[in-house]
Amino acid sequence: MPHIALNSAEPGIRGLLRYRPETARPLRELTEVLLRGPNTLTRGERELIAAYVSARNDCRYCSSSHSACAAAQLPGGIALVEQVRADPATAPISAKLKALLTIASAVGHSGRAVTAEHVAHARAAGATDMEIHDTVLIAAALCMFNRYVDGLATIAPEDPSLYAAGAQRLVMHGYLAPAPDPSREG
Amino acid sequence: MPHIALNSAEPGIRGLLRYRPETARPLRELTEVLLRGPNTLTRGERELIAAYVSARNDCRYCSSSHSACAAAQLPGGIALVEQVRADPATAPISAKLKALLTIASAVGHSGRAVTAEHVAHARAAGATDMEIHDTVLIAAALCMFNRYVDGLATIAPEDPSLYAAGAQRLVMHGYLAPAPDPSREG
Repeated sequence: MPHIALNSAEPGIRGLLRYRPETARPLRELTEVLLRGPNTLTRGERELIAAYVSARNDCRYCSSSHSACAAAQLPGGIALVEQVRADPATAPISAKLKALLTIASAVGHSGRAVTAEHVAHARAAGATDMEIHDTVLIAAALCMFNRYVDGLATIAPEDPSLYAAGAQRLVMHGYLAPAPDPSREG
Repeated sequence: MPHIALNSAEPGIRGLLRYRPETARPLRELTEVLLRGPNTLTRGERELIAAYVSARNDCRYCSSSHSACAAAQLPGGIALVEQVRADPATAPISAKLKALLTIASAVGHSGRAVTAEHVAHARAAGATDMEIHDTVLIAAALCMFNRYVDGLATIAPEDPSLYAAGAQRLVMHGYLAPAPDPSREG
Protein backbone atom coordinates (compact mmCIF):
# COMPACT_ATOMS: atom_id res chain seq x y z
CA MET A 1 0.00 0.00 0.00
CA PRO A 2 1.41 3.44 -0.88
CA HIS A 3 2.73 5.56 2.02
CA ILE A 4 0.40 8.43 1.05
CA ALA A 5 -3.22 8.58 -0.13
CA LEU A 6 -3.07 8.87 -3.92
CA ASN A 7 -6.02 9.92 -6.05
CA SER A 8 -6.07 6.80 -8.25
CA ALA A 9 -5.33 3.08 -8.02
CA GLU A 10 -2.69 3.24 -10.76
CA PRO A 11 0.57 1.41 -10.05
CA GLY A 12 4.14 2.71 -9.86
CA ILE A 13 5.01 6.09 -11.29
CA ARG A 14 1.59 6.40 -12.94
CA GLY A 15 -0.23 7.05 -9.67
CA LEU A 16 2.41 9.61 -8.65
CA LEU A 17 2.22 11.47 -11.95
CA ARG A 18 -1.55 11.73 -11.61
CA TYR A 19 -1.26 12.87 -7.97
CA ARG A 20 1.09 15.78 -8.67
CA PRO A 21 0.60 17.14 -12.22
CA GLU A 22 2.93 20.11 -11.60
CA THR A 23 5.95 17.80 -11.22
CA ALA A 24 4.57 15.23 -13.70
CA ARG A 25 4.97 17.60 -16.62
CA PRO A 26 8.77 18.06 -16.44
CA LEU A 27 9.25 14.41 -15.41
CA ARG A 28 7.35 13.23 -18.49
CA GLU A 29 9.23 15.60 -20.75
CA LEU A 30 12.62 14.56 -19.35
CA THR A 31 11.81 10.88 -19.94
CA GLU A 32 10.54 11.51 -23.47
CA VAL A 33 13.67 13.47 -24.48
CA LEU A 34 16.09 11.01 -22.88
CA LEU A 35 14.52 7.72 -23.94
CA ARG A 36 12.76 8.62 -27.20
CA GLY A 37 14.13 11.95 -28.53
CA PRO A 38 16.56 12.20 -31.48
CA ASN A 39 19.71 10.29 -30.55
CA THR A 40 22.49 8.15 -31.99
CA LEU A 41 21.61 5.55 -29.34
CA THR A 42 18.49 3.63 -30.38
CA ARG A 43 15.35 3.77 -28.28
CA GLY A 44 15.88 0.11 -27.44
CA GLU A 45 19.44 0.74 -26.23
CA ARG A 46 18.31 3.63 -24.03
CA GLU A 47 15.45 1.61 -22.53
CA LEU A 48 17.99 -1.16 -21.86
CA ILE A 49 20.20 1.26 -19.89
CA ALA A 50 17.11 2.37 -17.93
CA ALA A 51 16.09 -1.25 -17.26
CA TYR A 52 19.61 -2.24 -16.20
CA VAL A 53 19.99 0.61 -13.70
CA SER A 54 16.49 0.03 -12.29
CA ALA A 55 17.21 -3.68 -11.83
CA ARG A 56 20.43 -2.89 -9.97
CA ASN A 57 18.44 -0.52 -7.76
CA ASP A 58 16.01 -3.37 -7.15
CA CYS A 59 13.00 -1.33 -8.28
CA ARG A 60 10.46 -3.85 -9.56
CA TYR A 61 8.07 -1.42 -11.22
CA CYS A 62 10.70 0.54 -13.16
CA SER A 63 12.86 -2.46 -14.07
CA SER A 64 9.82 -4.41 -15.32
CA SER A 65 8.45 -1.47 -17.27
CA HIS A 66 11.72 -0.45 -18.95
CA SER A 67 12.64 -4.10 -19.59
CA ALA A 68 9.35 -4.52 -21.46
CA CYS A 69 9.99 -1.31 -23.43
CA ALA A 70 13.53 -2.46 -24.28
CA ALA A 71 12.30 -5.90 -25.31
CA ALA A 72 9.66 -4.36 -27.59
CA GLN A 73 12.30 -2.28 -29.40
CA LEU A 74 15.34 -4.60 -29.59
CA PRO A 75 15.68 -7.46 -32.08
CA GLY A 76 16.75 -9.80 -29.25
CA GLY A 77 13.52 -9.22 -27.34
CA ILE A 78 13.07 -10.12 -23.68
CA ALA A 79 15.68 -12.90 -23.84
CA LEU A 80 18.37 -10.36 -24.66
CA VAL A 81 17.15 -7.99 -21.94
CA GLU A 82 17.36 -10.78 -19.37
CA GLN A 83 20.88 -11.70 -20.50
CA VAL A 84 21.99 -8.08 -20.13
CA ARG A 85 20.37 -7.75 -16.71
CA ALA A 86 22.14 -10.93 -15.58
CA ASP A 87 25.58 -10.10 -17.01
CA PRO A 88 26.22 -7.44 -19.66
CA ALA A 89 29.80 -8.69 -20.18
CA THR A 90 28.67 -11.98 -21.74
CA ALA A 91 25.51 -10.68 -23.48
CA PRO A 92 25.49 -10.38 -27.30
CA ILE A 93 25.58 -6.57 -27.42
CA SER A 94 28.16 -4.15 -28.85
CA ALA A 95 31.38 -3.29 -27.03
CA LYS A 96 30.16 0.31 -26.98
CA LEU A 97 26.92 -0.58 -25.23
CA LYS A 98 28.80 -2.74 -22.72
CA ALA A 99 31.11 0.19 -21.91
CA LEU A 100 28.12 2.52 -21.52
CA LEU A 101 26.41 0.03 -19.17
CA THR A 102 29.59 -0.01 -17.06
CA ILE A 103 29.31 3.77 -16.76
CA ALA A 104 25.59 3.48 -15.93
CA SER A 105 26.36 0.96 -13.22
CA ALA A 106 28.94 3.29 -11.66
CA VAL A 107 26.44 6.17 -11.72
CA GLY A 108 23.99 3.98 -9.83
CA HIS A 109 26.55 3.71 -7.04
CA SER A 110 27.67 7.35 -7.05
CA GLY A 111 28.56 10.02 -9.59
CA ARG A 112 32.08 9.98 -8.22
CA ALA A 113 32.39 6.27 -9.06
CA VAL A 114 32.63 7.10 -12.78
CA THR A 115 36.34 7.14 -13.62
CA ALA A 116 38.35 8.62 -16.48
CA GLU A 117 39.15 5.00 -17.41
CA HIS A 118 35.45 4.14 -17.75
CA VAL A 119 35.02 7.10 -20.07
CA ALA A 120 38.19 6.39 -22.08
CA HIS A 121 37.05 2.79 -22.52
CA ALA A 122 33.64 3.89 -23.82
CA ARG A 123 35.25 6.38 -26.18
CA ALA A 124 37.67 3.72 -27.49
CA ALA A 125 34.64 1.52 -28.20
CA GLY A 126 33.13 4.30 -30.33
CA ALA A 127 30.97 6.25 -27.88
CA THR A 128 30.58 9.97 -28.54
CA ASP A 129 30.65 12.62 -25.82
CA MET A 130 26.89 13.10 -26.24
CA GLU A 131 26.30 9.35 -25.82
CA ILE A 132 28.39 9.36 -22.65
CA HIS A 133 26.48 12.41 -21.42
CA ASP A 134 23.11 10.84 -22.12
CA THR A 135 24.10 7.52 -20.52
CA VAL A 136 25.10 9.33 -17.32
CA LEU A 137 21.87 11.35 -17.30
CA ILE A 138 19.65 8.33 -18.09
CA ALA A 139 21.28 6.37 -15.25
CA ALA A 140 21.01 9.34 -12.88
CA ALA A 141 17.36 9.94 -13.84
CA LEU A 142 16.49 6.30 -13.14
CA CYS A 143 18.15 6.64 -9.73
CA MET A 144 15.59 9.41 -9.16
CA PHE A 145 12.58 7.54 -10.56
CA ASN A 146 13.44 4.32 -8.68
CA ARG A 147 13.66 6.26 -5.39
CA TYR A 148 10.46 8.19 -6.12
CA VAL A 149 8.47 5.05 -6.94
CA ASP A 150 9.77 2.93 -4.05
CA GLY A 151 10.19 5.78 -1.56
CA LEU A 152 6.41 6.22 -1.61
CA ALA A 153 5.80 2.45 -1.65
CA THR A 154 3.72 2.48 -4.82
CA ILE A 155 2.17 -0.72 -6.09
CA ALA A 156 4.31 -2.87 -8.42
CA PRO A 157 2.25 -5.62 -10.09
CA GLU A 158 4.00 -8.96 -10.67
CA ASP A 159 2.22 -10.02 -13.88
CA PRO A 160 4.67 -9.47 -16.80
CA SER A 161 1.79 -9.16 -19.27
CA LEU A 162 0.74 -5.88 -17.65
CA TYR A 163 4.18 -4.40 -18.30
CA ALA A 164 4.20 -5.76 -21.87
CA ALA A 165 0.85 -4.09 -22.52
CA GLY A 166 2.14 -0.83 -21.02
CA ALA A 167 5.23 -1.05 -23.22
CA GLN A 168 3.10 -1.38 -26.35
CA ARG A 169 1.34 1.84 -25.38
CA LEU A 170 4.60 3.65 -24.56
CA VAL A 171 6.26 2.52 -27.82
CA MET A 172 3.26 3.82 -29.75
CA HIS A 173 2.41 7.01 -27.84
CA GLY A 174 5.49 7.92 -25.79
CA TYR A 175 5.86 9.23 -22.26
CA LEU A 176 4.13 12.61 -22.60
CA ALA A 177 0.51 11.46 -22.59
CA PRO A 178 -0.92 9.90 -19.43
CA ALA A 179 -2.18 6.33 -19.70
CA PRO A 180 -5.91 5.86 -19.24
CA ASP A 181 -6.83 5.26 -15.59
CA PRO A 182 -8.79 2.00 -15.42
CA SER A 183 -9.97 2.76 -11.88
CA ARG A 184 -11.81 5.80 -13.24
CA GLU A 185 -13.48 4.13 -16.15
CA GLY A 186 -17.13 3.26 -16.04
CA MET B 1 38.39 18.45 -15.74
CA PRO B 2 35.01 17.28 -17.03
CA HIS B 3 34.88 13.80 -18.61
CA ILE B 4 33.43 15.25 -21.83
CA ALA B 5 34.14 18.40 -23.85
CA LEU B 6 31.52 20.94 -22.78
CA ASN B 7 30.77 24.13 -24.73
CA SER B 8 31.45 26.52 -21.85
CA ALA B 9 33.70 26.84 -18.80
CA GLU B 10 30.72 27.05 -16.41
CA PRO B 11 30.96 24.90 -13.27
CA GLY B 12 28.67 22.12 -12.02
CA ILE B 13 25.22 21.69 -13.47
CA ARG B 14 25.45 25.01 -15.32
CA GLY B 15 27.87 23.68 -17.93
CA LEU B 16 25.71 20.57 -18.42
CA LEU B 17 22.51 22.59 -18.86
CA ARG B 18 24.18 24.71 -21.51
CA TYR B 19 25.61 21.62 -23.26
CA ARG B 20 22.27 19.86 -23.66
CA PRO B 21 19.36 22.36 -23.85
CA GLU B 22 16.83 19.62 -24.69
CA THR B 23 17.25 18.00 -21.27
CA ALA B 24 17.98 21.33 -19.54
CA ARG B 25 14.42 22.53 -20.08
CA PRO B 26 12.60 19.85 -18.06
CA LEU B 27 15.41 19.73 -15.48
CA ARG B 28 15.08 23.48 -14.87
CA GLU B 29 11.30 23.25 -14.70
CA LEU B 30 11.38 20.33 -12.26
CA THR B 31 13.75 22.23 -9.95
CA GLU B 32 11.67 25.41 -10.12
CA VAL B 33 8.42 23.59 -9.25
CA LEU B 34 9.97 21.52 -6.47
CA LEU B 35 12.11 24.15 -4.77
CA ARG B 36 10.24 27.40 -5.50
CA GLY B 37 6.68 26.60 -6.61
CA PRO B 38 3.62 27.07 -4.37
CA ASN B 39 4.08 24.84 -1.33
CA THR B 40 3.35 24.63 2.40
CA LEU B 41 7.08 23.97 2.90
CA THR B 42 9.01 27.25 2.63
CA ARG B 43 11.60 27.75 -0.08
CA GLY B 44 14.28 27.75 2.62
CA GLU B 45 13.09 24.42 4.02
CA ARG B 46 13.08 22.83 0.56
CA GLU B 47 16.56 24.12 -0.23
CA LEU B 48 17.68 22.73 3.12
CA ILE B 49 16.40 19.26 2.17
CA ALA B 50 18.25 19.56 -1.16
CA ALA B 51 21.45 20.68 0.58
CA TYR B 52 21.24 17.89 3.16
CA VAL B 53 20.79 15.12 0.59
CA SER B 54 23.56 16.52 -1.62
CA ALA B 55 25.95 16.70 1.34
CA ARG B 56 25.22 13.08 2.24
CA ASN B 57 25.92 12.18 -1.40
CA ASP B 58 29.20 14.06 -1.07
CA CYS B 59 28.45 16.29 -4.07
CA ARG B 60 30.39 19.50 -3.47
CA TYR B 61 28.81 21.60 -6.20
CA CYS B 62 25.18 20.78 -5.36
CA SER B 63 25.62 20.82 -1.58
CA SER B 64 27.41 24.19 -1.69
CA SER B 65 24.87 25.70 -4.06
CA HIS B 66 21.76 24.52 -2.21
CA SER B 67 23.31 25.34 1.18
CA ALA B 68 23.84 28.91 -0.01
CA CYS B 69 20.24 29.08 -1.30
CA ALA B 70 18.92 27.70 2.00
CA ALA B 71 21.05 30.13 4.01
CA ALA B 72 19.75 33.06 1.96
CA GLN B 73 16.14 32.10 2.69
CA LEU B 74 16.21 30.88 6.31
CA PRO B 75 16.37 33.19 9.34
CA GLY B 76 19.18 31.07 10.82
CA GLY B 77 21.42 31.63 7.77
CA ILE B 78 24.48 29.54 7.02
CA ALA B 79 25.07 28.69 10.70
CA LEU B 80 21.73 26.87 10.81
CA VAL B 81 22.42 25.10 7.51
CA GLU B 82 25.75 23.85 8.84
CA GLN B 83 24.11 22.62 12.05
CA VAL B 84 21.53 20.69 10.05
CA ARG B 85 24.16 19.21 7.74
CA ALA B 86 26.16 18.08 10.78
CA ASP B 87 23.23 16.66 12.77
CA PRO B 88 19.57 17.45 12.09
CA ALA B 89 18.51 15.82 15.40
CA THR B 90 20.15 18.53 17.51
CA ALA B 91 19.59 21.47 15.14
CA PRO B 92 17.00 24.15 16.09
CA ILE B 93 14.43 23.16 13.46
CA SER B 94 10.83 21.91 13.79
CA ALA B 95 10.04 18.29 14.63
CA LYS B 96 8.27 18.10 11.27
CA LEU B 97 11.34 19.18 9.33
CA LYS B 98 13.49 16.73 11.31
CA ALA B 99 11.12 13.89 10.39
CA LEU B 100 11.14 14.95 6.73
CA LEU B 101 14.96 15.03 6.73
CA THR B 102 14.93 11.47 8.09
CA ILE B 103 12.79 10.44 5.11
CA ALA B 104 15.10 12.34 2.74
CA SER B 105 18.11 10.57 4.19
CA ALA B 106 16.46 7.16 3.66
CA VAL B 107 15.64 8.07 0.04
CA GLY B 108 19.30 8.88 -0.51
CA HIS B 109 20.13 5.32 0.43
CA SER B 110 17.28 3.63 -1.47
CA GLY B 111 13.57 4.17 -2.05
CA ARG B 112 12.94 0.93 -0.22
CA ALA B 113 14.68 2.29 2.88
CA VAL B 114 11.70 4.57 3.59
CA THR B 115 9.55 2.77 6.14
CA ALA B 116 5.93 3.11 7.24
CA GLU B 117 7.35 4.20 10.61
CA HIS B 118 9.28 7.08 9.02
CA VAL B 119 6.10 8.25 7.34
CA ALA B 120 3.94 7.81 10.46
CA HIS B 121 6.47 9.81 12.45
CA ALA B 122 6.42 12.66 9.93
CA ARG B 123 2.63 12.65 9.89
CA ALA B 124 2.50 12.72 13.71
CA ALA B 125 4.78 15.76 13.60
CA GLY B 126 2.30 17.53 11.33
CA ALA B 127 3.51 16.68 7.82
CA THR B 128 0.84 16.43 5.11
CA ASP B 129 0.81 13.76 2.42
CA MET B 130 1.85 16.37 -0.16
CA GLU B 131 4.80 17.44 2.03
CA ILE B 132 5.87 13.81 2.37
CA HIS B 133 5.50 13.36 -1.41
CA ASP B 134 7.53 16.46 -2.17
CA THR B 135 10.24 15.54 0.32
CA VAL B 136 10.66 12.13 -1.33
CA LEU B 137 10.76 13.68 -4.80
CA ILE B 138 13.17 16.47 -3.79
CA ALA B 139 15.52 13.90 -2.24
CA ALA B 140 15.20 11.61 -5.28
CA ALA B 141 15.79 14.50 -7.69
CA LEU B 142 18.95 15.50 -5.84
CA CYS B 143 20.16 11.91 -6.10
CA MET B 144 19.82 12.44 -9.87
CA PHE B 145 21.46 15.88 -9.98
CA ASN B 146 24.35 14.81 -7.72
CA ARG B 147 25.08 11.83 -9.98
CA TYR B 148 24.75 13.91 -13.15
CA VAL B 149 27.12 16.60 -11.91
CA ASP B 150 29.75 14.26 -10.45
CA GLY B 151 29.29 11.45 -13.00
CA LEU B 152 30.60 13.82 -15.67
CA ALA B 153 33.27 15.23 -13.33
CA THR B 154 32.16 18.84 -13.69
CA ILE B 155 34.13 21.59 -11.97
CA ALA B 156 33.13 22.42 -8.38
CA PRO B 157 34.75 25.67 -7.18
CA GLU B 158 35.80 25.80 -3.51
CA ASP B 159 35.23 29.54 -2.88
CA PRO B 160 31.99 29.91 -0.83
CA SER B 161 31.50 33.48 -2.10
CA LEU B 162 30.83 32.13 -5.60
CA TYR B 163 27.97 29.99 -4.31
CA ALA B 164 26.61 32.87 -2.21
CA ALA B 165 26.55 35.07 -5.32
CA GLY B 166 24.83 32.32 -7.29
CA ALA B 167 22.26 31.96 -4.52
CA GLN B 168 21.44 35.66 -4.65
CA ARG B 169 20.72 35.29 -8.37
CA LEU B 170 18.65 32.11 -7.86
CA VAL B 171 16.62 33.64 -5.02
CA MET B 172 15.87 36.63 -7.24
CA HIS B 173 15.36 34.99 -10.65
CA GLY B 174 14.73 31.29 -9.99
CA TYR B 175 15.94 28.18 -11.78
CA LEU B 176 14.29 28.67 -15.18
CA ALA B 177 16.59 31.33 -16.62
CA PRO B 178 20.21 30.40 -17.37
CA ALA B 179 22.90 32.33 -15.51
CA PRO B 180 25.11 34.54 -17.66
CA ASP B 181 28.20 32.67 -18.92
CA PRO B 182 31.27 34.68 -17.88
CA SER B 183 33.51 32.69 -20.26
CA ARG B 184 31.47 34.04 -23.19
CA GLU B 185 31.50 37.68 -22.17
CA GLY B 186 33.76 40.20 -23.88
